[in-house]
Amino acid sequence: MKTSVLKTSFPPANLLNPLPVVMVSCGNTPEEHNIITVAWCGTVCSDPPMCYISIRPERHSYTIIKKNREFVINLVSKNLTAITDWCGVRSGKKYRKFEKMMITPIAAEKIKAPMIAESPVNIECVVKEIIPLGSHDMFIADIVAIHASEKYLNPTTQALELSNANLVSYNHGHYYCLGKEIGKFGFSVEKKK
Amino acid sequence: MKTSVLKTSFPPANLLNPLPVVMVSCGNTPEEHNIITVAWCGTVCSDPPMCYISIRPERHSYTIIKKNREFVINLVSKNLTAITDWCGVRSGKKYRKFEKMMITPIAAEKIKAPMIAESPVNIECVVKEIIPLGSHDMFIADIVAIHASEKYLNPTTQALELSNANLVSYNHGHYYCLGKEIGKFGFSVEKKK
Repeated sequence: MKTSVLKTSFPPANLLNPLPVVMVSCGNTPEEHNIITVAWCGTVCSDPPMCYISIRPERHSYTIIKKNREFVINLVSKNLTAITDWCGVRSGKKYRKFEKMMITPIAAEKIKAPMIAESPVNIECVVKEIIPLGSHDMFIADIVAIHASEKYLNPTTQALELSNANLVSYNHGHYYCLGKEIGKFGFSVEKKK
Repeated sequence: MKTSVLKTSFPPANLLNPLPVVMVSCGNTPEEHNIITVAWCGTVCSDPPMCYISIRPERHSYTIIKKNREFVINLVSKNLTAITDWCGVRSGKKYRKFEKMMITPIAAEKIKAPMIAESPVNIECVVKEIIPLGSHDMFIADIVAIHASEKYLNPTTQALELSNANLVSYNHGHYYCLGKEIGKFGFSVEKKK
């Protein structure tokens, strides 16, 4: 490869990009239901399937999730982007987010937190460990159930095909659609037919 | 919103998408230098800036990073996708990855692990905590320095503009370019001019 080594240094900052952006729903009762948008989230273990979200203690959902030790990660399709952004800048201390955004809480299977019906994929999570790090606490969680909208299932194989879900990526403070596919995992070593 | 509540349930699985995909470089000496590709990575704290990567103990880089407690996260542009994929499916036990992929290790500022010159952004990390979770151990790290290719700096403000870096997103086993921008953080509450 041609090398370009002209680099500029910056102080430590969070520049890992692009990131996921998801709506996290929580609350054991309709009165407690809330949604927080997070990009500080990810997969941390394959077996058992585990993920994390990081939340500032001053956020309304922090107290709810810390108390109930349950939450749902709801993936974000393009048509949910404005709602996702709004849930990230407004507080559950002031707004009832499901009602205000006219989205639908539906019952989860294994936990009491609600799932967002309009989201293409809902991931039920049970908190295993809370690690205070500074501005944020990390909630490490076991994934206990998954639900996906039927329209993203292959009609023949019933496999989930997320390529049709128009998922949104968060890059350096901006929301993006996914664009052109470059290849599948392993494409660099696949034998040509 | 119009509700679509036809959902199908799946057993617990890692379906948080889309994810980042990065090349992690490590090794204190040229002989030890290696690169591992990870999508199980993310930002865990804003202040101090912290991130994580999760690695299987059987991977070659696991032992190196556990011993040295240092690594570099190298972001992936579209033109690095095939190299990134190759570094994810091939092992450093068998290949010298920098040489084989003809990419350039350059010295980091604060740590001994090498940075990948061709990557648009290099994030120097020092491991703070290693948490065994099952198939993967999570390496939680402090970000100690950042380097970015000068061509992504705004010539007037010197601000980093990652929108031009053609970063790659990993979605359900496939690599994608970022596509159309939907909006900036906060766009849902911005007053129209």
